[in-house]
Amino acid sequence: MKYVYAFHEGGKDQKYLLGGKGANLAEMTKLGLPVPPGFTISTDACKAYMNAADTLPDGLMEEVADALVTLEENMGKRLGDDADPLLVSVRSGAPFSMPGMMDTVLNLGLNDASVKGLAKLTDNERFAYDSYRRFVQMFGKIVLDVPGDLFEDALQDLMEDRDVALDTALSAEDLHGLVGTFKAIVAREAGVSFPDDPREQLRYAIEAVFKSWNGDRAKVYRKMEKIPDDLGTAVNVQTMVFGNKGDDSGTGVAFTRNPSTGENAPYGDFLANAQGEDVVAGIRITEPLGAMGNHFPECHTQLLDVMGLLERHYRDMCDIEFTIEQGRLFILQTRVGKRTAAAALRMAVEMEQEDLIDQREAVLRVQPEQLDQLLHPQFDSDASYDVLAKGLNASPGAAVGQVYFTADDAEAAAARGERVILVRPETSPEDLHGMIAAEGILTSRGGLVSHAAVVARGMGTPAICGADALRIDLAKKEFTVDREQIVCGVASIVTTTVGEGAVISINGSTGEVVVGEVPVVTPEPTGPFGIVLGWADGFRTLKVRTNADLPHDAQKAREFGAEGIGLCRTEHMFLGDRLPIVQAMILAETDAAEDRALAALLEVQRSDFVGILEAMDGLPVTVRLLDPPLHEFLPRHDEVLGRRVNAFIQGVGDPEADELMQALKRWEEANPMLGTRGCRLGILKPGLYKMQVRALIEAAVIRKRAGGDPQVEIMIPLTVIDTEMELLEGWVRDEAAKVFEDQGTEVDYLVGTMVETPRAAIVADEIARTAEFFSFGTNDLTQMTFGFSRDDVEGRMMPEYLERGLLKVSPFEQLDRGGVGQLVEWAKERGRSVRPDLKLGICGEHGGDPASVHFCHEVGLDYVSCSPYRVPLARLAAAHAALEATGPGTTA
Amino acid sequence: MKYVYAFHEGGKDQKYLLGGKGANLAEMTKLGLPVPPGFTISTDACKAYMNAADTLPDGLMEEVADALVTLEENMGKRLGDDADPLLVSVRSGAPFSMPGMMDTVLNLGLNDASVKGLAKLTDNERFAYDSYRRFVQMFGKIVLDVPGDLFEDALQDLMEDRDVALDTALSAEDLHGLVGTFKAIVAREAGVSFPDDPREQLRYAIEAVFKSWNGDRAKVYRKMEKIPDDLGTAVNVQTMVFGNKGDDSGTGVAFTRNPSTGENAPYGDFLANAQGEDVVAGIRITEPLGAMGNHFPECHTQLLDVMGLLERHYRDMCDIEFTIEQGRLFILQTRVGKRTAAAALRMAVEMEQEDLIDQREAVLRVQPEQLDQLLHPQFDSDASYDVLAKGLNASPGAAVGQVYFTADDAEAAAARGERVILVRPETSPEDLHGMIAAEGILTSRGGLVSHAAVVARGMGTPAICGADALRIDLAKKEFTVDREQIVCGVASIVTTTVGEGAVISINGSTGEVVVGEVPVVTPEPTGPFGIVLGWADGFRTLKVRTNADLPHDAQKAREFGAEGIGLCRTEHMFLGDRLPIVQAMILAETDAAEDRALAALLEVQRSDFVGILEAMDGLPVTVRLLDPPLHEFLPRHDEVLGRRVNAFIQGVGDPEADELMQALKRWEEANPMLGTRGCRLGILKPGLYKMQVRALIEAAVIRKRAGGDPQVEIMIPLTVIDTEMELLEGWVRDEAAKVFEDQGTEVDYLVGTMVETPRAAIVADEIARTAEFFSFGTNDLTQMTFGFSRDDVEGRMMPEYLERGLLKVSPFEQLDRGGVGQLVEWAKERGRSVRPDLKLGICGEHGGDPASVHFCHEVGLDYVSCSPYRVPLARLAAAHAALEATGPGTTA
Repeated sequence: MKYVYAFHEGGKDQKYLLGGKGANLAEMTKLGLPVPPGFTISTDACKAYMNAADTLPDGLMEEVADALVTLEENMGKRLGDDADPLLVSVRSGAPFSMPGMMDTVLNLGLNDASVKGLAKLTDNERFAYDSYRRFVQMFGKIVLDVPGDLFEDALQDLMEDRDVALDTALSAEDLHGLVGTFKAIVAREAGVSFPDDPREQLRYAIEAVFKSWNGDRAKVYRKMEKIPDDLGTAVNVQTMVFGNKGDDSGTGVAFTRNPSTGENAPYGDFLANAQGEDVVAGIRITEPLGAMGNHFPECHTQLLDVMGLLERHYRDMCDIEFTIEQGRLFILQTRVGKRTAAAALRMAVEMEQEDLIDQREAVLRVQPEQLDQLLHPQFDSDASYDVLAKGLNASPGAAVGQVYFTADDAEAAAARGERVILVRPETSPEDLHGMIAAEGILTSRGGLVSHAAVVARGMGTPAICGADALRIDLAKKEFTVDREQIVCGVASIVTTTVGEGAVISINGSTGEVVVGEVPVVTPEPTGPFGIVLGWADGFRTLKVRTNADLPHDAQKAREFGAEGIGLCRTEHMFLGDRLPIVQAMILAETDAAEDRALAALLEVQRSDFVGILEAMDGLPVTVRLLDPPLHEFLPRHDEVLGRRVNAFIQGVGDPEADELMQALKRWEEANPMLGTRGCRLGILKPGLYKMQVRALIEAAVIRKRAGGDPQVEIMIPLTVIDTEMELLEGWVRDEAAKVFEDQGTEVDYLVGTMVETPRAAIVADEIARTAEFFSFGTNDLTQMTFGFSRDDVEGRMMPEYLERGLLKVSPFEQLDRGGVGQLVEWAKERGRSVRPDLKLGICGEHGGDPASVHFCHEVGLDYVSCSPYRVPLARLAAAHAALEATGPGTTA
Repeated sequence: MKYVYAFHEGGKDQKYLLGGKGANLAEMTKLGLPVPPGFTISTDACKAYMNAADTLPDGLMEEVADALVTLEENMGKRLGDDADPLLVSVRSGAPFSMPGMMDTVLNLGLNDASVKGLAKLTDNERFAYDSYRRFVQMFGKIVLDVPGDLFEDALQDLMEDRDVALDTALSAEDLHGLVGTFKAIVAREAGVSFPDDPREQLRYAIEAVFKSWNGDRAKVYRKMEKIPDDLGTAVNVQTMVFGNKGDDSGTGVAFTRNPSTGENAPYGDFLANAQGEDVVAGIRITEPLGAMGNHFPECHTQLLDVMGLLERHYRDMCDIEFTIEQGRLFILQTRVGKRTAAAALRMAVEMEQEDLIDQREAVLRVQPEQLDQLLHPQFDSDASYDVLAKGLNASPGAAVGQVYFTADDAEAAAARGERVILVRPETSPEDLHGMIAAEGILTSRGGLVSHAAVVARGMGTPAICGADALRIDLAKKEFTVDREQIVCGVASIVTTTVGEGAVISINGSTGEVVVGEVPVVTPEPTGPFGIVLGWADGFRTLKVRTNADLPHDAQKAREFGAEGIGLCRTEHMFLGDRLPIVQAMILAETDAAEDRALAALLEVQRSDFVGILEAMDGLPVTVRLLDPPLHEFLPRHDEVLGRRVNAFIQGVGDPEADELMQALKRWEEANPMLGTRGCRLGILKPGLYKMQVRALIEAAVIRKRAGGDPQVEIMIPLTVIDTEMELLEGWVRDEAAKVFEDQGTEVDYLVGTMVETPRAAIVADEIARTAEFFSFGTNDLTQMTFGFSRDDVEGRMMPEYLERGLLKVSPFEQLDRGGVGQLVEWAKERGRSVRPDLKLGICGEHGGDPASVHFCHEVGLDYVSCSPYRVPLARLAAAHAALEATGPGTTA
């Protein structure tokens, strides 16, 4: 078996044999690019090593020795040579990019003898010894597992001793001494003396790469990513080149197109007499790529040729690392480059026009997640700022404004023309007017489905929730944040106080809170945005609807391409100035009082429905009958208690508070998520659903008379048992029939249910006998399938779970295929077994998550529904899913 | 097709054709018993009627006419005859007993002419007209759907007019007039004049029976019971006989053995010159069956012969209704008779000894549910009492005692030698000492899994929970109950106040609260109890374990036959005098403080475990690591708030209350059921589980050294993801290994998990890679599968759901096969697919429910686990399941 392959022997399709990095280096070599020569030890060698209980396979080191001889001959240098030593880098390279594996050892081949050759050759003793001490440090830490702090501490001690602040101020002599110190650390900690023989160094490094394949982090990562344990890793051994050998050397990074704007023009940074890390570190000021032509005209021309060749070869914008060593250009690495959303769209459209790629590929080139950048204001990427606190990224986009602590104050300030950030411990329906007035919302409590988060996303207002470092004092109208700062090794607590009217900036996409104004850019979706989404619509089969409760949200979503409403939550229609009527209904002690309140609600609900059906005319509108428990429409327990305590202290009565407290106690629940909500409430308060059905059907009749095309789907929430569905479907049909009789006009409508409990999914066949459609409420389904209440686990448990790798991603962000997805699939199969044309959709938060949209496509749902600002993303994700399912397309 | 069968043409195996009642009447006729003759219209006729859109099939009425002629010839009387009319009853009779169907029409055949013949024949005009008016009333109401109130009102009016209090005081003339009034009501309400032609009466009645098959209640019932809609019902037409034709007539009910004690001797009641309903109504004082020999020696002898014959024929105790008409005995009905638990056991054992049945059948003759009667004190069945209020039957058995309102008062009173009933709004861990001291527990709030209910069941103490009519005033130490009383048609509210020290009686089996002392009988399980359970053990394959947290509960359960502990909840070990240590752990601000608290807990937990392992020596003991959320170990929010308000009012501070409030807020959850509990808590507080594992393994080592045989199974609660299980299993094994090293001794143990979330069931194959056993926590599994929090739905929603027939039985009482059962089955299949010897059990409340035990047997679990007092029941239910699965046995 052959274990070692020179770069020219491989190609980009051999990543299972050579690893991703090795295959790529081979590809460039094959293209004739000036890649520093080297060889790759295959994954077969790693597998043999593992199978032999961590013993290098017979013949491997002989093959390595042969490859090394060839390399030495090729380069005209010898590893460990006293005069002109060959130095190499050793890198791991698995078939899939994998954190937790051995990274890189540079400058391998240095020892006490060859370092002198390097010093002489470069005429730079300091450079040579600095390279040497870095090699010993890197090798000790990465290959021999010596704690890295020990080296850092020794360096620190030396700097203190020499009274210098930067290590660049240390002399060649100092660094020479440091090599000795480092070697002593290695001998003490690793129990072996530092290997001076470069071939022995190489053997150590190869074994270290193989061992790292079975390191704890690598294993956890493979488990999460479902990468087989027996793939093994390759090892790349490559000649070192140096861009810091003088003014005839340099290094840089180049992009074949502008990664920020997408413009079709070379782009990049360049530094003369420097190493790669200097460009990245940003210590020295780089020059633009064009300026390179002044210093190195030939290399510049050669680089532009390479760039053109690579872009045509990869049919995509490439990101290239290069080094010029004494006037000679080397290409160290290339890969498809990262880009902004705007650039991705522009490149996709232009490359399609250039016949570099076809429409299918153009659509696949834009990542759905990126589109958010184009739909919400963002902090200017050039701005620098100091983050005061971090919370949950509850609603994307950036906002700047003055802080106000009550909804009333926020509304008043906005009326004065101020930009407002509403800051609250958490929000409730009573804060709605302040939330509407605000540019951004910041809360110190609550998770990604807290009231603040859900409402903000629906309105497209940036929001951060659960920023628990904020101590909000509502009485003083200020919040404070304590931060630990370490200055000169001394920790201290810095307390920042932000009072009413102070300006802050929040980034709802990242959860960052900043004091003062951060420049914000508001992107405008441009031509390519519409073109790519148009192409996407041609490929996808999954429909995209929106979750919208109000006419203007519906209108906005329709502009974004929504093909109907998948979830119209009627509870939002119970808020604001209707709240007193709703409370009257809850507090009603007689049927007559309850009927009066319901009649008042009928009026306002009907007009809401008319507006929504008008905005979505000709498209389906799924209206969910009231879902939340009634106590959500009452003031908070603490607040009412506070009123009663006050009344008690003042020796007066507060009968209204007493009544509210009675109602709160009556409707109080230990676990409201699993309590009297959804259709359970509908069954306990039959008048409520009848009123809602009447309002909706009357609205549809009004729209039809006005020449519209209302497409009504009535959704029963939280069904668990087929009998519930039968009972309520009967009520709906009875009430609709009465409206038709009263009005003398009929409209078509469907009656279906929200599948949001595990049981509903399991007995879907029984429920589908009555239900004409299912909409999967995957938020609740996830909560019940996992037994995770979002309110409770998101802040406390989830970070720990993600940190420990118990979960790869929160199941509330990405639909859990193993559990929740399985239920969705069963429900689909069982439901369609009795009703083949059962309409199926998803209306949880997952409707706006690309991976979840993929799942919905794969499992065969009819549509996903998401908040208005996620509609473009879902359209693109649905196209990706369809394209990936049918395999790669033909390319031009 | 033949539609009509004379009684002598059928037999007991033809219930699908003739219905249950018809098959039984045919069987008795075939046995030669003196059954009043008649015929049965088959279910085929009903099916034909339904298929022909509610039209009687061709030829049916001709066949009926022929059968009638035969009957008339047989009886020597004619239907509608003016002189000697034949009267018949018409009854429905479906293959399965079914409420909601047409019941019975008696005396069919009476009209204005034949009533005179009846009067003359019986020489009793009043009897004849009373029979006639009853017939018109019954026919009007049942056959013609006239509201029954109208007849009752008319009767009432007449009685007022005649100024009599009882209808027996009305004269023949009055009754004659009433017939006219009733007929007028029928004509007005039903729109048809009352049919005078008896054959027309019969046709109406037959159609009414057929129609009632598709009545709403009957349909709902069939749906719930999964009885096919197309079975149809039969109609029985039978000659009337009268026990009230004079002193040579009579009627009675007889049992072949004593249904109360099981004694093998005839038993029954008898009334001369009376109708069947007079015996049942209890207006006249009946004579014992033996006394019948004095009046009717021949009939008595004949009856005893019939009883012997029926018991041998049915091989069971029979319940017989008979009538003597003018010296002639008729058997009207027989069925296998109901009996008490004690009687069932005695009959089963004695019939086996008499070779009437075999052991299999003997075991099947005792219903598991009945055993509860024998394990707990009961109200004396002869006692009469007035029920003050009803609550949930939280823990079975009856108790009498003096009321105390705090745990301390209860404990003090018990120490003085008083019998105590502890009355609390609800209980918490802090009330435990009072609960232990009490004979019975009564709460006004909380459901069947509230703290009070769970603890009481575990201790075998009678308890009623959620008796929400009780308004408890803890300050005044009294409770009041308002009841509406209607006296002479006037409603008034009667308020009963029960103060400290007053005597009340509670029946935890029925939920009844009674003021004063109700005589209580304490049954003693006798010989037959042990014999039948012993036989049961021989048949069952399902093991029965117990849920026990304390050594003496384990001991008790072992006496009841438990074969191990399926669930030892360690949280109960955190209560009582350990609570301060637990609170110290929760409040700990430093690791050192937390470690100190954990060390203290280690000591007490270890000694608990030693006791439990000793009590269950040689049998498996499954110990669940701590499951509930931490806030359950803190005082209630209201209480701490109260302390702080008090401190505020008095202008002083209460730092402890402040600290507790902080902790409460830290651990407060919106939905604790779906929050940080189970292994989530274990992962967040690693020291806790390590302490518990150490305590348990050290206890096992101690037991092993003492010569015991500890069989430890460590259970991780609330697993959702395989990675959780892997992480925690690792911790358990690491800690156990440390103990083994410290102690120099090893013990075997298993590590498994509680499957109590839908996801754990779905991904059971992934979890079973690490878990060595699954215990299904079906309480939580039901809560999450349905999305029903017991605390919230049991009192409010469930009664409505049961009432409306949306659910047949609460899924918390009987395992829901369609949803939860499906998950259990999937988990079994998937789990065993990767670990064929995966041990499977159930440890929710369902482990003590017979139907659920059946399910566990069918699905192939290894064991069920239930509270100690349910163990005998589960043993018997498991035997029933095994016997029913293998089909009927041979009988002697």
